[in-house]
Amino acid sequence: MLPWITMMNLQKDAEMPVFLQLANGIIREIKNGILKPGSKMPGTRMMADALKINRQTVVNAYDELDAQGWIVSRQSKGSFISHKLPEFTPKRIAQIPQPSNRPDCTGYSFTINTIIHEPAKPNRHINGFHDGPDVRLVPAELLSRGYKSILSRKSGIILLSYAEVEGRQYVRKAISDYLNSTRGLQTKEDNLLITRGAQMAMYLLASVLISKNDIVVTANLSFRYADICFLNAGATIVRIPVDEDGIDVDELEKICRKKTIRAIYVTSHHHYPTTVTLCAARRMKLIHLAEQYGFIIIEDDYDYEFHYESSPILPLASVDKQGMVVYIGSFSKTISPSIRIGYIAAPPNLIMELSKLRMILDVQGDPIGEQAVAELLNEGQIRRHMKKVLKVYKERRDFMVNRLKDKLSDVIDFKSPEGGLSIWARFDNKYPLPELSEKMMKKNLVLSKGLIHDLAPGKKLNSTRMGFGWMNINEADHAITVLEETIKR
Amino acid sequence: MLPWITMMNLQKDAEMPVFLQLANGIIREIKNGILKPGSKMPGTRMMADALKINRQTVVNAYDELDAQGWIVSRQSKGSFISHKLPEFTPKRIAQIPQPSNRPDCTGYSFTINTIIHEPAKPNRHINGFHDGPDVRLVPAELLSRGYKSILSRKSGIILLSYAEVEGRQYVRKAISDYLNSTRGLQTKEDNLLITRGAQMAMYLLASVLISKNDIVVTANLSFRYADICFLNAGATIVRIPVDEDGIDVDELEKICRKKTIRAIYVTSHHHYPTTVTLCAARRMKLIHLAEQYGFIIIEDDYDYEFHYESSPILPLASVDKQGMVVYIGSFSKTISPSIRIGYIAAPPNLIMELSKLRMILDVQGDPIGEQAVAELLNEGQIRRHMKKVLKVYKERRDFMVNRLKDKLSDVIDFKSPEGGLSIWARFDNKYPLPELSEKMMKKNLVLSKGLIHDLAPGKKLNSTRMGFGWMNINEADHAITVLEETIKR
Repeated sequence: MLPWITMMNLQKDAEMPVFLQLANGIIREIKNGILKPGSKMPGTRMMADALKINRQTVVNAYDELDAQGWIVSRQSKGSFISHKLPEFTPKRIAQIPQPSNRPDCTGYSFTINTIIHEPAKPNRHINGFHDGPDVRLVPAELLSRGYKSILSRKSGIILLSYAEVEGRQYVRKAISDYLNSTRGLQTKEDNLLITRGAQMAMYLLASVLISKNDIVVTANLSFRYADICFLNAGATIVRIPVDEDGIDVDELEKICRKKTIRAIYVTSHHHYPTTVTLCAARRMKLIHLAEQYGFIIIEDDYDYEFHYESSPILPLASVDKQGMVVYIGSFSKTISPSIRIGYIAAPPNLIMELSKLRMILDVQGDPIGEQAVAELLNEGQIRRHMKKVLKVYKERRDFMVNRLKDKLSDVIDFKSPEGGLSIWARFDNKYPLPELSEKMMKKNLVLSKGLIHDLAPGKKLNSTRMGFGWMNINEADHAITVLEETIKR
Repeated sequence: MLPWITMMNLQKDAEMPVFLQLANGIIREIKNGILKPGSKMPGTRMMADALKINRQTVVNAYDELDAQGWIVSRQSKGSFISHKLPEFTPKRIAQIPQPSNRPDCTGYSFTINTIIHEPAKPNRHINGFHDGPDVRLVPAELLSRGYKSILSRKSGIILLSYAEVEGRQYVRKAISDYLNSTRGLQTKEDNLLITRGAQMAMYLLASVLISKNDIVVTANLSFRYADICFLNAGATIVRIPVDEDGIDVDELEKICRKKTIRAIYVTSHHHYPTTVTLCAARRMKLIHLAEQYGFIIIEDDYDYEFHYESSPILPLASVDKQGMVVYIGSFSKTISPSIRIGYIAAPPNLIMELSKLRMILDVQGDPIGEQAVAELLNEGQIRRHMKKVLKVYKERRDFMVNRLKDKLSDVIDFKSPEGGLSIWARFDNKYPLPELSEKMMKKNLVLSKGLIHDLAPGKKLNSTRMGFGWMNINEADHAITVLEETIKR
């Protein structure tokens, strides 16, 4: 009898089931030549005793080995190591020796895109003023139940196959109903393209709508990754100022009189990064200008659900009579940044053109995840979830706003934001953010250097978004204390 | 007492939990004005009796209503409809009336992309010779367990946040190990970019590597969606013939002598659509030509795992000494078409450039799904699954090949494919495929018209891929019988 217990070294608390550990252990010993083809395996009872495990576990392991072709079980005679082992040995290409090293560089050159910069690594392992939702509040249990329910349903099997490029009918209906009831839109299924988050929405729109040298207007403070999509599509960006009432539409009108504008990118609900809301009068004027001059309004409503003070204002898309507005949103902040489900709401002719590009870029979305989210929407679970987390985020905002006012009002200039998950913080120039950020990082706390907001070259804002959503109140208390010490010492 | 049981109409066997049905029913009646603000709700015991349900269910419903702000519970006094209802009523934009109809067309025009055609709707509801895997064989149970395990782990929370653009380290390590052990590659984590399936891989490669008027060589029969990616990036496509040994590399050499070629697209393992394998001598010559003339080999190994006869030949990428080969693969066929996880293996400098574009297009992949697949790979579950399904697919191939030979050898010319999930079937010109396909569709069976393979305009091949993987043997038997009747009647 072989020393099975030492050879197999089974771990009962490991992730992999014990029967698989056993099956894999036996395969390993066959490969090592310890167990020879044709030799008889111990009976299941004997093996169970030798390994001090349940006999059924051994039966399961032998069944697995049999199914894979490593052993052959003969009625009443027992199990034998197979003579024809199922090992997977692909053929080498005759005469070409394999290289001993992988090539560490391409054997050809290619154009480096200077518009898009190298992506930063996400820094999630340490706490701090991250600009995003607290993933501890993600409804993981709801999602998990959703996945399980869908995958165990008989009808769920259709979701494992190829799907409609623009998203399944059920999903588009659910999101359309949600947008219509919460935001006063008047969409139907054919007004929607489901995307991988708002970023893909922007990429698709820029690719389809913007041609080389088209003028796209954004604010002089804006979302850099939208800018990049437009620039990458060949746009010339013209910037207009933003003040407490949002973007300056009078300035926009002046530009319209002189030049042909193709599109404007707006974050009307909470301007990114400054968090201000575009006021009603400017909204009216913006819509009229678009109709008059024929430019497209790309309305990115990235955090519509996050509003604490009064009721939110309905989006521009809700009053779009002439099909000038394209509306973008996502569930990345509502549910989870890793559940990348976003959407574009627009007239059907544009949705079709966008779908064509999405086809060659991605084929389709994630039918299982999208179905889970659609069902949660239809059950009202998303609204219930939002109601709960909004309470939490409002407390966190209030705490951070008050604490920063108490402790750092001489250094940081800001207004309490009506919505969103971040404060737009203008730091005194005596305290350059890049230095401050480095010092905070050494204390294991994230504070953005704010460089991502410096869109005009050479202009140093010394301002940044300080997230209040990511940390609970104790963590925020600690982070602000450390920030104060770092600044004032 | 109100007629609660009729008003609430609870369904015990519905998907939505009864407590939520009850809570939603009460919200509905508050909105309808039946339940007035300030009025007292029945006690939980009384309500439970009235509705003939468990009291705890009523307690849960009231808790939910309390959390949402619809009712206020006062210690020992009971629950009351809230005076300040939590209804979500966003503000309209003052002075702008909402349109009574949604705009059915954009108010501006845009360029219609004539390279990409309108995507066809997937036709999954009816059976037939679909070119793809049988979703009934998808390891849904394994996936479901994977999701659940990840979402319930404490460490799983990191997967709900933003992730690395190129995929998490754990996932790239798992896929890298898998490629190295099954395909003789020598990749490390920094050689891999995880994509949404092979299609995104092709889109990214075409966008980064191909400039306007670059020459890309493909076979005169090739994968149309690869062609479209290259054409969309501005390439000029030059086609070379394909015979029983794969693409004609002598023809390629002639072109190289005359023109500068930027890249060649090859499906070396099973040529798409003809299923032939590129022979060893041609592989050697192809690699040497790439090194000599400096062109890129884009090797799309879309169905490496599906091989029935001899062992598969290692990919071109396994003998790439000078970094000329970019290798594409995916788990769409191995696991499920809706689990869109693919990868590009290439030198790190190219991976970085591709990651930049992926950032603005998609930000990141699906960390939960990717983690689930990586764990299944590490546990050997994917290989076990493949071993099982390969047996099934081999039987189906053999059945269809034999049956077609028996019944339709005078109409369909084909060879039994060594791998993949489809037969390349050349139909006698007496039976035009578009007509045949229409007739089959009327009998609820899919047979591709083959038009997707007619890459050269005006050339009618009357050939198509007939999938043998999608149907079980009974279904295939029926489908072939119907096909025979349709042809011969």
